[in-house]
Amino acid sequence: MSSSSILAEKTDQAVAELRDAELDGWLTFARETHNLGEPCLPLVLGEGFVWPGMVLLTATGRKIAITETHDADNVRAHGVHEVYPYESSLQSAFHEVLDEVEPKRLGLNYSKANPTADGLSLGLYEQLREYIDASDHRIELVSAAPIVESVRGRKSETETERIQGAVDTAHGILREVQTEWRPEWTEAETAAFVHERVADLGLVTSWDAETCPAVTAGVEGEYGHAKPGDVTIPPGEVMRIDFGVIREEYASDMQRVYYHQPAGETEIPDGLRSDFDDARDAIRAGFDALEPGVQGYEVDAAAREYLTERGWPEYQHGLGHQVGRYVHDGGTYLGPQWDRYGDAPYGEVREGEVYTLELGIQTDYGSISLEEMVQVTADGARFMTEQQTDPWVLDAN
Amino acid sequence: MSSSSILAEKTDQAVAELRDAELDGWLTFARETHNLGEPCLPLVLGEGFVWPGMVLLTATGRKIAITETHDADNVRAHGVHEVYPYESSLQSAFHEVLDEVEPKRLGLNYSKANPTADGLSLGLYEQLREYIDASDHRIELVSAAPIVESVRGRKSETETERIQGAVDTAHGILREVQTEWRPEWTEAETAAFVHERVADLGLVTSWDAETCPAVTAGVEGEYGHAKPGDVTIPPGEVMRIDFGVIREEYASDMQRVYYHQPAGETEIPDGLRSDFDDARDAIRAGFDALEPGVQGYEVDAAAREYLTERGWPEYQHGLGHQVGRYVHDGGTYLGPQWDRYGDAPYGEVREGEVYTLELGIQTDYGSISLEEMVQVTADGARFMTEQQTDPWVLDAN
Repeated sequence: MSSSSILAEKTDQAVAELRDAELDGWLTFARETHNLGEPCLPLVLGEGFVWPGMVLLTATGRKIAITETHDADNVRAHGVHEVYPYESSLQSAFHEVLDEVEPKRLGLNYSKANPTADGLSLGLYEQLREYIDASDHRIELVSAAPIVESVRGRKSETETERIQGAVDTAHGILREVQTEWRPEWTEAETAAFVHERVADLGLVTSWDAETCPAVTAGVEGEYGHAKPGDVTIPPGEVMRIDFGVIREEYASDMQRVYYHQPAGETEIPDGLRSDFDDARDAIRAGFDALEPGVQGYEVDAAAREYLTERGWPEYQHGLGHQVGRYVHDGGTYLGPQWDRYGDAPYGEVREGEVYTLELGIQTDYGSISLEEMVQVTADGARFMTEQQTDPWVLDAN
Repeated sequence: MSSSSILAEKTDQAVAELRDAELDGWLTFARETHNLGEPCLPLVLGEGFVWPGMVLLTATGRKIAITETHDADNVRAHGVHEVYPYESSLQSAFHEVLDEVEPKRLGLNYSKANPTADGLSLGLYEQLREYIDASDHRIELVSAAPIVESVRGRKSETETERIQGAVDTAHGILREVQTEWRPEWTEAETAAFVHERVADLGLVTSWDAETCPAVTAGVEGEYGHAKPGDVTIPPGEVMRIDFGVIREEYASDMQRVYYHQPAGETEIPDGLRSDFDDARDAIRAGFDALEPGVQGYEVDAAAREYLTERGWPEYQHGLGHQVGRYVHDGGTYLGPQWDRYGDAPYGEVREGEVYTLELGIQTDYGSISLEEMVQVTADGARFMTEQQTDPWVLDAN
């Protein structure tokens, strides 16, 4: 199973990170994850827990799962963990593992800034403290966020392939909009067409289908993540679609801008071309700044300055977020140094991470809002989407 | 929208509970709930948060939501909350609310025993402590679990209607299995038939479709939550199905036992009838013990003793769990006083709560495992399912 190959890749990555981070182990503690979620579990266990369970990855390379007996078979099936099943006492099994591993310093999944590294609930944390207090061990508990961010952010080979699949699929559907579109389509009808294509493929949208795709038709269209409405695109104006799909558990997220060319017009008007180029080249400026070692805000600043120097107002969000299992994955954020983003814009960009680059300007033609997906390489970045270089002229048949 | 009517019902219920609990308010703090989940949010907000946000319900009846501006419109649409939107600083908006409400004692969503009351992450808890330390207020923070359990457990009128719908739908599908079944069907084919009916209705199963339904065919069938296999039911043996659907966000969960009557046989064999009656009447014994004020383990004990007195081994789980938005809802558990169940069996049963009553025995005919759904009334309980009184004889056409 390729899920197990991701699991092997990610747990190996974690073990390597633990050595660098001077942690003896990374402990994930969760239960009822079908409902409650523990964003790290797919990476460290490849499964959910119904009953309380733990995954301990150690710097010495051990991959230990402590599971209630009913959860044990699913975990064993991956062939990655040493499984310590328990029937009535998780504490006893945990103490047995502590006696073997003797960790002095463990990372836990908590983080103010990064939701994907913050899966440990306060109740389970208190429970864990009790278990440790009742053991013969004294253990320093620290945030595992740096490990989570690296393991989650730096995509393995299999993960990169899956994201590429999600990108290509979304791109294909966005191209179909261009060829299938009818001038009488409202935003909502355009969205319905997209939903139909997603359903045909047996997939789901990257975020809530009510606003995925988000569709903004013409100057009158409502910008942002509003639900698609009953506006059509007047000739001479643009439509922008923000959309992505989840494919094999990995997401994509992109925006494309379409142009409703009036009958008889053969060239894209100079004004539109110039506005479009400003948005496109601002993204390009961000792309050029993206490389391992820079901080998130530096990448945002490159794009932001490019736009403001050309007289456009600042976009009211960051240039880019990470994409992975979630369409908004945590960790380093390519955003400005604003309060609301906390520490995320100060994070360091790392090879293998996947980001969006997105920004929009409100023009006389409507919203020109573009979004590309890129992956950081050893010395820069590469587009996972084919960057949109011109407005896609709608084919009215 | 009926979602808003549930929201009004549940938030009113919470306000009443706060007065009894001597809390000034109940604070839910969450973000990225699409991925991370916060089991209380559907009850107190009726929505998810993308950005960090808070819901504060106060003993004086105020229903306050602090939301990032992009989340604010969705919250306002319910017409239930006073919305305090923030752009860059959640802390400032929170301080403004604290200055108005002046709470001395707040309940937070954390609990060792109850996952549905444990939605607060450790990272957000630390963030909250920082916000409070930076304010002019000194606030005692305690677990809101008693409130969560009551608000979540005691179903409102609209919730009861929805659960009844999920029960009736699952029951109807289980009856269809009886009439549509073919002797050559394997466990997996029976499950496929059920899945087809669920899909026809545009619904989803109450838990992971791989094991919902769980199907155990005959003596050779694998019992428990194993995936349905390629076994058929030999004539003279039984099949047991464990199944439920989610309908309008509320779950059902029940088990039914079917009998593959050999050609020419016209009566259910005495041995099977007697075994079946033991299981059925053990459930009945639990049902008779169920009323407001008893502790969970007392109800379990009534059923357990009934079975063991008749020479059957003890079932290796509790008699019943709550059902609501989750098929395994938290709070009081009708289970034995075993370590692994923590405090849950000591909880008090309350009017309006919905439970399963389930147990199984392994017989010469195969697994006889039954599960009913019941709701606690003012002075006892009522079946939401029609209790299964006999094995359902399969119609081989």
